[in-house]
Amino acid sequence: MKKLISREENYSEWYNELVVRAGLAEHSAVRGCMVIKPYGYSIWEKMQSELDRRFKDTGHENAYFPLFVPKSLFEAEEKNAEGFAKECAVVTHYRLKNDPSNPGKLMVDPEAKLEEELVVRPTSEAIIWNTYKNWIQSYRDLPILVNQWANVVRWEMRTRLFLRTAEFLWQEGHTAHATKEEAVEETVKMLDVYAEFAENILAIPVIKGVKTESERFAGAEDTYCIEALMQDGKALQAGTSHFLGQNFAKAFDVKFAGKDGKLDYVWATSWGVSTRLMGALIMTHSDDNGLVLPPQVAPIQVIIVPIYRTDEEQTQTIEAGKQICESLKKIGIRAKLDDKDNQKPGWKFAEYELKGVPLRIAVGPRDLAQNSVELARRDTQEKATISMDGLSERIENLLVEIQQGLLNKAFERMTQNTREANNFEEFKEILNGPGGFISAHWDGTPETEEAIKAETKATIRCIPLNRSAEPGVCVFSGKPSSGRVLFARAY
Amino acid sequence: MKKLISREENYSEWYNELVVRAGLAEHSAVRGCMVIKPYGYSIWEKMQSELDRRFKDTGHENAYFPLFVPKSLFEAEEKNAEGFAKECAVVTHYRLKNDPSNPGKLMVDPEAKLEEELVVRPTSEAIIWNTYKNWIQSYRDLPILVNQWANVVRWEMRTRLFLRTAEFLWQEGHTAHATKEEAVEETVKMLDVYAEFAENILAIPVIKGVKTESERFAGAEDTYCIEALMQDGKALQAGTSHFLGQNFAKAFDVKFAGKDGKLDYVWATSWGVSTRLMGALIMTHSDDNGLVLPPQVAPIQVIIVPIYRTDEEQTQTIEAGKQICESLKKIGIRAKLDDKDNQKPGWKFAEYELKGVPLRIAVGPRDLAQNSVELARRDTQEKATISMDGLSERIENLLVEIQQGLLNKAFERMTQNTREANNFEEFKEILNGPGGFISAHWDGTPETEEAIKAETKATIRCIPLNRSAEPGVCVFSGKPSSGRVLFARAY
Repeated sequence: MKKLISREENYSEWYNELVVRAGLAEHSAVRGCMVIKPYGYSIWEKMQSELDRRFKDTGHENAYFPLFVPKSLFEAEEKNAEGFAKECAVVTHYRLKNDPSNPGKLMVDPEAKLEEELVVRPTSEAIIWNTYKNWIQSYRDLPILVNQWANVVRWEMRTRLFLRTAEFLWQEGHTAHATKEEAVEETVKMLDVYAEFAENILAIPVIKGVKTESERFAGAEDTYCIEALMQDGKALQAGTSHFLGQNFAKAFDVKFAGKDGKLDYVWATSWGVSTRLMGALIMTHSDDNGLVLPPQVAPIQVIIVPIYRTDEEQTQTIEAGKQICESLKKIGIRAKLDDKDNQKPGWKFAEYELKGVPLRIAVGPRDLAQNSVELARRDTQEKATISMDGLSERIENLLVEIQQGLLNKAFERMTQNTREANNFEEFKEILNGPGGFISAHWDGTPETEEAIKAETKATIRCIPLNRSAEPGVCVFSGKPSSGRVLFARAY
Repeated sequence: MKKLISREENYSEWYNELVVRAGLAEHSAVRGCMVIKPYGYSIWEKMQSELDRRFKDTGHENAYFPLFVPKSLFEAEEKNAEGFAKECAVVTHYRLKNDPSNPGKLMVDPEAKLEEELVVRPTSEAIIWNTYKNWIQSYRDLPILVNQWANVVRWEMRTRLFLRTAEFLWQEGHTAHATKEEAVEETVKMLDVYAEFAENILAIPVIKGVKTESERFAGAEDTYCIEALMQDGKALQAGTSHFLGQNFAKAFDVKFAGKDGKLDYVWATSWGVSTRLMGALIMTHSDDNGLVLPPQVAPIQVIIVPIYRTDEEQTQTIEAGKQICESLKKIGIRAKLDDKDNQKPGWKFAEYELKGVPLRIAVGPRDLAQNSVELARRDTQEKATISMDGLSERIENLLVEIQQGLLNKAFERMTQNTREANNFEEFKEILNGPGGFISAHWDGTPETEEAIKAETKATIRCIPLNRSAEPGVCVFSGKPSSGRVLFARAY
């Protein structure tokens, strides 16, 4: 099997090759849209079920709103409309007909032009707040805690599998509240849900913070985010949670009568994570041999490969493999026996390594004679001969250890790659050297932020929630600053 | 609470009112598109998880393919294209811009016209077979057993919530096989999965059959279906499974090398069920008081309502309710205690009746004194005073009984409303009287089928798989027939 290009050689190519060769996704015939292949989709399903449970545990329900947004609704909240107008796929017609000049071909039927164009949702605030208008009369109708799993479309000129695609899958929570305090609390609560999920399920450590005004979601009062650091020193925004204030309530005239009978606009939040998380997952843990998956989201946690030469050995090793597989499944481990006879063990080893299966068990005749198996860890590449006695428990513990190990490793990398810069020379040295997060003082103005971005391509990833008050001077302008923010080049 | 209009008075209005008042779905601002509300969506989630498990148990994996189909791919399989061309939403532009003549408004940017129009998928055979082309080289790559959960769009002029909407949610399985036999086997296997699911989970009895040529899926060689009968005597197609032959493989040039090295076109199937099943579920079981849900798909299986006057009674009955709720949850029953103080018990009773909750437990002070509760069944409207001892087991058994009872009742109704007609007078008498399924001889020609439809609005729902060979004469043409087919007016 041809080796992947190395991360050292070309990180970007390594990522593209890995996504395709591990069977996660591929480009489709539709510009900028991807096909999520079964192996990639099954990882996404694991993410979905973990997130969905967390949403429900925090009182949210799922619902479904239309794919299309009539243009007049889309433009109602001006900032939101302005932010997304340039990347909207627009439906203008509702019928095709036979092309008279081209037998066997179809053409758009000019007589089937829509009176009002429909925007394919880039996000659903507009259609949802237009709906909530009818759901909300009084404080008794609040809060509304709704989430939607859906596809959205943002027309992107430069796309990359999972990281930036014209169509992507996501969830979008949209909540409505009677008070500002409650809405802010919800915004932060869902940010915490995302951070806990990223760390405990994806083994991706994240920094929780707030975006600057220029990086804010179009239509939000405040955008909270979780930011992760990839192996190449670039940051990746892994999830956002927006406090929308009363902007959408005002745009769609959504008022409620309080306990005192007084009418007021409703407060809103929205929050989302997408298939982009697949990109974050891949780039956080994988190595030059392929994907490395945290056990929590691995479709196969343990692969069992029988090793044999004779027919008798084949029967014996497969039988032993089956028994191990069954005993693992019994305790809830996603184990699989690969007893296909048309591929050699070496090929299988490489394949499951490429696919990031956390543990591999090889069962050969010599192992069987010694009541043992060969156990190989994907993350550390360690191999050991292990007794069959107590194997299931051993593996159960190892999976927990691997999960924790991946988080620790990523956390250490993030810590080592978070550096303070106290002047602009240092700032650029770090950026053009190892990269990573740069913690630096900023004067708080969009002008300085923009100037830094223009000169270095680094953006302010966030103002960390846990930053300490530390007076200083802006690395760029020398003006006073009340605390450090995190800069990085980003995906 | 205002009563629903009765089924007797206006079945169609009853359905519309019920869907909205039970909080299942509502019309949106987008013509023909619906909002699936949280209560409706949670029923759909139950259906999804039951179906998804069955798909995986039969060896299928989920994947995701693009929402858009480039026009040139869409038109590749001619019959399929012809069948859907008239109901396609078409994306022609990828950007909006400020409307210079209308400040604050947006317009489609004429400079952002797509070179090739994109069809919003009405079904995904085209985009998927164009993808499979690259996945399949030899017999070793087969079978491909993939399913997709997705939204699709078919522009409909006359829409009804769940039954016929421009956008709907569905799953579509798309499989590829080396032999015709295997593909036919798959088609029938998935039909059986649908039938088993409909009967055991939705408590909807169905007739399995094959469609006539004129009712076939555009591009299929054979369309298998399950047909259900609604309370008003109209049939509803609840799921279809298509044997696609080599049509799509030929249209997209998908060949595989067999074991002998010879190239041949791949054989295909596709199969789907949609949110239309929600309509079938509602219309099969519900009554003039509202929704009736089979326990298997009821988001709440048991609702517990405390009855009290004094504060002390409130504390006691809520405490008892909590205990009952916990003990039910412990054995996996979806129970809920409604201890809200701002609504009276009578209001709650009506509300949960409208929402179709299978069992209601009322806990009052007098009940408590006697160590009992009042238990009411939604399906039969029976009420009884039941001892608290062994209550959980009693309820567990009752839920099974209700599920079975609903299926039996629907099955009896279907049997009673399936009648033989041996001439066209009888045929019309039944159709204009009770309606239902009419089992009648047909000469096998599309002309006769069309003539019957034109005169009576009845269509051939299916040629039942289990029909017996019975020579006869066509009710319309008097020509010979080899067996009966099922006619009905249909949704």
